[in-house]
Amino acid sequence: MRAVVLDGVRSVSVTDVADPVLPGDDGVVVQVEQAGICGSDLHLYHGDLGEPGTRLGHEFVGTVLEAGPAVRTVRPGDRVLVSGVIGCGHCPPCLARDPARCRNGGTAVFGTGADLPGGQAEAVAVPAADAWTLVVPEDVTPTQAVLLTDILPTGYLGARRADIVPGSTVAVIGLGPVGVLALECARLFGPARLFAVDQVPDRLARAERLGAETVDASAGPVPEQLMALTGGHGVDAVIEAVGADRTVSDALLSVATGGTVSVVGVSVNMAFPFPLVLALLRGLTFRVTLASIPSTWDTLVPLLATGRLAPDDVVTHRLGLSEAPEAYAMFDAHAEGVLKVVLDPTR
Amino acid sequence: MRAVVLDGVRSVSVTDVADPVLPGDDGVVVQVEQAGICGSDLHLYHGDLGEPGTRLGHEFVGTVLEAGPAVRTVRPGDRVLVSGVIGCGHCPPCLARDPARCRNGGTAVFGTGADLPGGQAEAVAVPAADAWTLVVPEDVTPTQAVLLTDILPTGYLGARRADIVPGSTVAVIGLGPVGVLALECARLFGPARLFAVDQVPDRLARAERLGAETVDASAGPVPEQLMALTGGHGVDAVIEAVGADRTVSDALLSVATGGTVSVVGVSVNMAFPFPLVLALLRGLTFRVTLASIPSTWDTLVPLLATGRLAPDDVVTHRLGLSEAPEAYAMFDAHAEGVLKVVLDPTR
Amino acid sequence: MRAVVLDGVRSVSVTDVADPVLPGDDGVVVQVEQAGICGSDLHLYHGDLGEPGTRLGHEFVGTVLEAGPAVRTVRPGDRVLVSGVIGCGHCPPCLARDPARCRNGGTAVFGTGADLPGGQAEAVAVPAADAWTLVVPEDVTPTQAVLLTDILPTGYLGARRADIVPGSTVAVIGLGPVGVLALECARLFGPARLFAVDQVPDRLARAERLGAETVDASAGPVPEQLMALTGGHGVDAVIEAVGADRTVSDALLSVATGGTVSVVGVSVNMAFPFPLVLALLRGLTFRVTLASIPSTWDTLVPLLATGRLAPDDVVTHRLGLSEAPEAYAMFDAHAEGVLKVVLDPTR
Amino acid sequence: MRAVVLDGVRSVSVTDVADPVLPGDDGVVVQVEQAGICGSDLHLYHGDLGEPGTRLGHEFVGTVLEAGPAVRTVRPGDRVLVSGVIGCGHCPPCLARDPARCRNGGTAVFGTGADLPGGQAEAVAVPAADAWTLVVPEDVTPTQAVLLTDILPTGYLGARRADIVPGSTVAVIGLGPVGVLALECARLFGPARLFAVDQVPDRLARAERLGAETVDASAGPVPEQLMALTGGHGVDAVIEAVGADRTVSDALLSVATGGTVSVVGVSVNMAFPFPLVLALLRGLTFRVTLASIPSTWDTLVPLLATGRLAPDDVVTHRLGLSEAPEAYAMFDAHAEGVLKVVLDPTR
Repeated sequence: MRAVVLDGVRSVSVTDVADPVLPGDDGVVVQVEQAGICGSDLHLYHGDLGEPGTRLGHEFVGTVLEAGPAVRTVRPGDRVLVSGVIGCGHCPPCLARDPARCRNGGTAVFGTGADLPGGQAEAVAVPAADAWTLVVPEDVTPTQAVLLTDILPTGYLGARRADIVPGSTVAVIGLGPVGVLALECARLFGPARLFAVDQVPDRLARAERLGAETVDASAGPVPEQLMALTGGHGVDAVIEAVGADRTVSDALLSVATGGTVSVVGVSVNMAFPFPLVLALLRGLTFRVTLASIPSTWDTLVPLLATGRLAPDDVVTHRLGLSEAPEAYAMFDAHAEGVLKVVLDPTR
Repeated sequence: MRAVVLDGVRSVSVTDVADPVLPGDDGVVVQVEQAGICGSDLHLYHGDLGEPGTRLGHEFVGTVLEAGPAVRTVRPGDRVLVSGVIGCGHCPPCLARDPARCRNGGTAVFGTGADLPGGQAEAVAVPAADAWTLVVPEDVTPTQAVLLTDILPTGYLGARRADIVPGSTVAVIGLGPVGVLALECARLFGPARLFAVDQVPDRLARAERLGAETVDASAGPVPEQLMALTGGHGVDAVIEAVGADRTVSDALLSVATGGTVSVVGVSVNMAFPFPLVLALLRGLTFRVTLASIPSTWDTLVPLLATGRLAPDDVVTHRLGLSEAPEAYAMFDAHAEGVLKVVLDPTR
Repeated sequence: MRAVVLDGVRSVSVTDVADPVLPGDDGVVVQVEQAGICGSDLHLYHGDLGEPGTRLGHEFVGTVLEAGPAVRTVRPGDRVLVSGVIGCGHCPPCLARDPARCRNGGTAVFGTGADLPGGQAEAVAVPAADAWTLVVPEDVTPTQAVLLTDILPTGYLGARRADIVPGSTVAVIGLGPVGVLALECARLFGPARLFAVDQVPDRLARAERLGAETVDASAGPVPEQLMALTGGHGVDAVIEAVGADRTVSDALLSVATGGTVSVVGVSVNMAFPFPLVLALLRGLTFRVTLASIPSTWDTLVPLLATGRLAPDDVVTHRLGLSEAPEAYAMFDAHAEGVLKVVLDPTR
Repeated sequence: MRAVVLDGVRSVSVTDVADPVLPGDDGVVVQVEQAGICGSDLHLYHGDLGEPGTRLGHEFVGTVLEAGPAVRTVRPGDRVLVSGVIGCGHCPPCLARDPARCRNGGTAVFGTGADLPGGQAEAVAVPAADAWTLVVPEDVTPTQAVLLTDILPTGYLGARRADIVPGSTVAVIGLGPVGVLALECARLFGPARLFAVDQVPDRLARAERLGAETVDASAGPVPEQLMALTGGHGVDAVIEAVGADRTVSDALLSVATGGTVSVVGVSVNMAFPFPLVLALLRGLTFRVTLASIPSTWDTLVPLLATGRLAPDDVVTHRLGLSEAPEAYAMFDAHAEGVLKVVLDPTR
């Protein structure tokens, strides 16, 4: 079958690889129908993480081809979505759908190493399927299904871990796919004001349509703009959705006393220059989140089903699997009008 | 001056009474411009609470006529709103704006007894004004100011104490003024589904415009309807906004396992028949709320100022103070189209 | 094999019954070594619940005799403790160890009906064993293992759901086995004062040894005593561990404004006379708990292992299974010195 | 009168200065009886903060000499303790005893600048006395009163903000006065295991007497030791009570997945090298606390009064005010047996 493989820095190809086999009695093989490209895939694309040869992709939806005899909840023919982050699947935290706390050291992300080949492929092996797959619910669109594999849960948890309460002021820094979903999710917590920060005009325009007040990062230092907009108090809850040193720093400099900075942007920095004295004066809470994707499904599915969340238009581009090189390049360039790109192996 | 006085069962009059005097160094006298009639005033009107001769009303907004020398935050000429519930004003809970927990036994409601004459009058004395008054903020309408004196805070706290989280199912039983505000406030907590229960068609229609799914209580037992709508699971958070035995019972019979019933309807029953065994099986949380009004102002004012809450149309009727007898009768009758009635002593 | 069977009001016998068989691929059969008699068993003994013929007991520890092929976590020969409350074992709440919220309507208690024969027997069938059994941890004593099947988790959850924070005042009403464990668990939340209420002298003496201030219920109305001890303020968190109307009423009349009453006593009353107007004035939170036993094991096992909880002496009597009639009579009589009675089928 | 004045790096003197005058209608002048030296005073002593000429000290207890006419809660002759951290005293957060969130920018610490001379002196002016002073409660010892002005509240809030729940593992890094109080307070939250980290033998011995498991930082890398002690999982809640880069780093490297690092040590570093990628993998919550001292008094006073907290022996040395130079040198040296040093201006 064909799969997207990392060749080197800013280079991917679509390559023939061996078909996946059932990963144990409790696993399934899924025929992929859609596979998102995630902002965190760019860390591999840029050479910051991972090894050449890695089969990429952790956001995929498809149909079960084969299921091990111990699998209870899905059967061949079921359309399923799969958590991008998994664990051993059998320890208490995994059974409670919290793979980030797997007791057996099994926390892993599809498509980041040889042990767990990715889902930007025609098919993929999924271990411990009862824990990590969900039959696509009737009221959820195919696009929403893809978003439920990673970035909608990540955006939601980023918002939830920002300690937003009714009446809060909130800022989302970075309006890429995760940021814009964090923005939608932040509204679930009743903020009085919601600031959206980016420098790309169409991203700011999208945020404005979602009811946010926009802050153009190219117009001057973000902390100064946010302080001015809040009468010098700062923002109660800042969600950082980029992962760059500059944007994490902007978040820390923009928060109000007693406030929270919640980082969902992925950084690989082991020595980010953190302003401890400022954190003291602000009585800061600072959180970084590796999302336990399935823990959010019971919350998000009803919100999607009733239209309280309507994130479909985050996906702006769909290409065939064979167009993966173009898709990565387009996504990496933050081109005008490009937000989320999904690959379709069935084309 | 003139004031609304309780004469007996279902009888009020507008009577000449002595002008109020400054209630101590820390008090103010307020010239009333608007005074709401509250559902809880009907307990006095029906003879369930209070004594004839009581000067009614705990929801009022007006202009400061006179201020004691120890008052810091308001001055003569300021337009202020006043908390309907007060305390001593100087103990730690009162300073933290939580009069329901006054340490000196000072918790009291305007217009329910001789000690604290009500605000359905041309003027009213307000003790400990720094604690219980707020200068009407610039972005808050006069109608919103009246709602901030009691029923918007009460509806908000009823919703907050219902333990709603994103994705919850919520029901509000009783769509009078407090119920409809509780409905609006419930949306701040991100529910997936919001059920609105009443039997008056225009109240149900209003709830539908607010995005709720309506349940007509005249069409059959409410618990059966809510169970059917939730696939037999029941509702995660039920807000009761009537205070009648029937509606509290409906709330208890409609709640899901692990759910919460939050009562903001005022009941004077000392022996409501409570289903303890059902509460056990459901793992129930049951709350009744006497609202510490001022504790909510920092939350609600920004939500009003930015339009996230827009409750003005709850006030459906405005009459002159002299029309108080007609106003009480109309409000008591739950007449078609009547929701909140406000008296205006300046007419 | 032999099992304790309910014959009628205040009558049990030890009867020969068919040996249990494996309850499905995911179940086990356990050879029982210890089986507690619980206060809630007395509802059956008194004829308030259940049917004659019921095989009693939901608190048991033993050794796995046989395990279905789908069982992962225990094997024949393992010494296990079993949750007294179970669910289907496979829905998300059950996998998260929360059987009280089973989505498939499977919430059940061993030994209360024909579907799930009890554990006061030589052997017992346990369905969905991965969800409901725990290999007895190395640092946990056999007595602690029995307590982990129901009453220690119940006491713990009763305390946790009482909203105790450091500095709170706490009262436990009823110092039977669950009450005394709730008392021990309440200390984990940092109360400043801990009141223990009962009328049996040796129960009060035990509470005093645990550091509580004792209140003799036979010396006068409990609410008056607790109000006097707290300067008229009432108690922040009241845990009710009896389930009688009088004690639930005492709890409600003793709570401080803003406080919580947490009921773990089992009542079968469908019309307890609840003082709604008092609840309003107090801003009450009222909770009743059906304990999801296994949800507490990760918390309680380390506390037992390190000696922070040391509840072994709650078990005051051990009798052979054949002595069940005497054991029930003794436990029912609240005889001096009798707290928890355990039956041993191996004698 | 005499006051301790900062002369330069590692140099203080006891100097004659002008007597304090009443700081407004709402202020008092306090005749100081005890004044602690705090670890954060060493930042001034080391030249990292503040200016020569600063009158030092923010931990003091004494008797009211004079009170402005607007003061309600204290009178001349009252023995009072004073919050080391204050605000304007009149905005809503200040009235709720949360000076760290003062809306008027008034957050300040006694003894750190010319605007608010310190309390290591014979007398001191205290503005907004109703907000920042507390009459020493009857059941509180004089030593406890000093501890309530800063380090006991700081230690308590450090523990509370560490998200400890019953059964948690907890580590306190740094067993100086604040650390040892954080250790005592951590026990209020029900941890199963409590690790105490330092390299000074008598500090470790003290922690052992308090029931902690000790970790000798001189015996090897602290994170390695804590990982080994927790089976490789890390510690759920780490409280850092030093403020050095090394110890903050140790805290971050020792925390379990899903855990919290709570910093109460004061750091002046604006660019601490923070491991963002590790924080992501751990799903970290990181908090730094500037303590709103008076917000804790309602919690801590009852715990002291009933002996649940018994921190008196933290004060190991008492010297006369004139011995301040020796006292600072002794405290700075972390000499064997020296924990908390208090100056007494009445000697």
